[in-house]
Amino acid sequence: MPTLRRDPIAGRWVINPDGKEDHPSSLIEMEKLPQKGVCPFCEGNESYTPPEIFALRSKGSEKDGPGWEVRVVPNISPALRVELDLDRRAERMYDLMNAVGAHEVIVETPKHIPNLADLEVWQIKKVIETYKMRISDLKKDKRLRSIFIFKNYGERAGSSPIKHAHSQLIAVSVTPKNLKEELVGAKEYYDYKERCVFCDMIKQELSTEKRLICSNPDFLAIAPFASRFSHEVWILPKKHSVDFEDMSEEGSQNLAFLLKEVLLRLKILLNDPPYNFILHSGPNRTKRREQAWKTLSEDYHWHIEIMPRYTRIDGFEWGTGLYINATTPEQAVTCLRKVKM
Amino acid sequence: MPTLRRDPIAGRWVINPDGKEDHPSSLIEMEKLPQKGVCPFCEGNESYTPPEIFALRSKGSEKDGPGWEVRVVPNISPALRVELDLDRRAERMYDLMNAVGAHEVIVETPKHIPNLADLEVWQIKKVIETYKMRISDLKKDKRLRSIFIFKNYGERAGSSPIKHAHSQLIAVSVTPKNLKEELVGAKEYYDYKERCVFCDMIKQELSTEKRLICSNPDFLAIAPFASRFSHEVWILPKKHSVDFEDMSEEGSQNLAFLLKEVLLRLKILLNDPPYNFILHSGPNRTKRREQAWKTLSEDYHWHIEIMPRYTRIDGFEWGTGLYINATTPEQAVTCLRKVKM
Repeated sequence: MPTLRRDPIAGRWVINPDGKEDHPSSLIEMEKLPQKGVCPFCEGNESYTPPEIFALRSKGSEKDGPGWEVRVVPNISPALRVELDLDRRAERMYDLMNAVGAHEVIVETPKHIPNLADLEVWQIKKVIETYKMRISDLKKDKRLRSIFIFKNYGERAGSSPIKHAHSQLIAVSVTPKNLKEELVGAKEYYDYKERCVFCDMIKQELSTEKRLICSNPDFLAIAPFASRFSHEVWILPKKHSVDFEDMSEEGSQNLAFLLKEVLLRLKILLNDPPYNFILHSGPNRTKRREQAWKTLSEDYHWHIEIMPRYTRIDGFEWGTGLYINATTPEQAVTCLRKVKM
Repeated sequence: MPTLRRDPIAGRWVINPDGKEDHPSSLIEMEKLPQKGVCPFCEGNESYTPPEIFALRSKGSEKDGPGWEVRVVPNISPALRVELDLDRRAERMYDLMNAVGAHEVIVETPKHIPNLADLEVWQIKKVIETYKMRISDLKKDKRLRSIFIFKNYGERAGSSPIKHAHSQLIAVSVTPKNLKEELVGAKEYYDYKERCVFCDMIKQELSTEKRLICSNPDFLAIAPFASRFSHEVWILPKKHSVDFEDMSEEGSQNLAFLLKEVLLRLKILLNDPPYNFILHSGPNRTKRREQAWKTLSEDYHWHIEIMPRYTRIDGFEWGTGLYINATTPEQAVTCLRKVKM
């Protein structure tokens, strides 16, 4: 039974998958592939993945067959399972529960293209629309407190061996500590200033342009003031918005455009670097939970964090949560702006 | 000027060293070495490091010459500098200050031995005694709020190219968020239970032995209940103690013995894995600070966290602070106990 265990001191949660020792990032049982070099994510190879959860398909095409634009399948070795009961319990002083949740793979294109940066804008928009639909669907299950979409590109960023553009979704029955920190931080700022901390940041960055990489009517991309990683980039909606899935279709189009621009600038400047991105969006709210969080969560503001992973992270960063970053965001922005597109 | 910048949402701090783009883990300017293969940390090569801060030396031996057992030198490209003024200030909505602090390298042996696990117990005791002395000395500077000692062993753990056993010390003018979380967590537990959370954990682990690896009169080594990494190990003093540097000399001896045993068990079981270890000890306290932390810090309990780094950490863990660990601590302990020493 996969479990979620809570550290009694720091309060962080750890998922222990089913006792199998393979890392859940291994998206597919490679040995089941008919031969090396066959990509299970390419159109026509649908039988090499578990049955699809969702797909954007052309009319008349059949489930688990060709004819799709974006396809969502369960992770072959999921870290979490949706069919379990939560069963919150104690082991003497410790707290644990069953690892209820979802662990999905979003295949971003039927073509064998490794980097999301190289997809057409209309295709990236389809990916974004898929993200929205999966989040909306999963939020119906109120046990699932937070839903994350993330991408590991390149080996140093923890990518699976499948070099075909894909992202992952994890929905989980706890509020992980980094999200809780952001919720609490945004709340404290709001209480003190009566303004959203993200909105204030956006206004300052648009006005000084010191850390602004690019923008369009709906979104902006900045190098955050306290960047943890060299060339870290955040993309934020200009207008206050808690939940990613509330974005309009026009918003998806503008986000696709900006996301492609940022990923291409990083790719050209840093020679196709490994990177992670992660979508931070509003949690799945209930009254009881908002009371526990001492917030209405309306102070939160969704955003995407993109972290190039060509520099090393060592024991100090892990152990302390204090980062050492040799590139200032201002240096990064100067270089990222100069990239010829 | 190296700076410390605060993220306005999550409250985490980032160190921006002096604008040089080399990673501060590069302990030495390699190009200054007379030839490849000369180790700047070996006895006789003292001139290839900056002048020593401290050394345990035989009587009559000269500073920066041979005749030492443990030697402490400044990091050649320090992330922090002790000679600066703090100069806390704002950049409009953001907070920053000068990166006041210390960044030192502790060379653990005059001999060219890569892994601390392979040193004699008496030598490891000297290393521990050196840690105590450096911490005591740095705590005199009340600007330095927290002092960490950590080790990166092996390339995947972020080690420098110098394959000679060494650890690093960072003293910094902020309380990094992982330490703050632990201080707050220990305080909340104390407020609710009127007991130290670490002491409770120690009692439970000694009584059930489910996650106990080994112990001696003063210390125990456990796989923590919510292990983030496969085969993660914590070493804790059995008796409640806030500050590492308060340990007696007999304590140092017993810690050296247990630390060697744990590192050897990991080395044999996992085939000389890369690992990080980090010492979590009580912060440098002042009345004002304890008021801000809403704690007397007396609820804290120092410990060493050892994290083997042979499994991959990807974007999900980074982005959320929620970990996926395919090895349960009970599985890890079963294997670690069976190792033939």
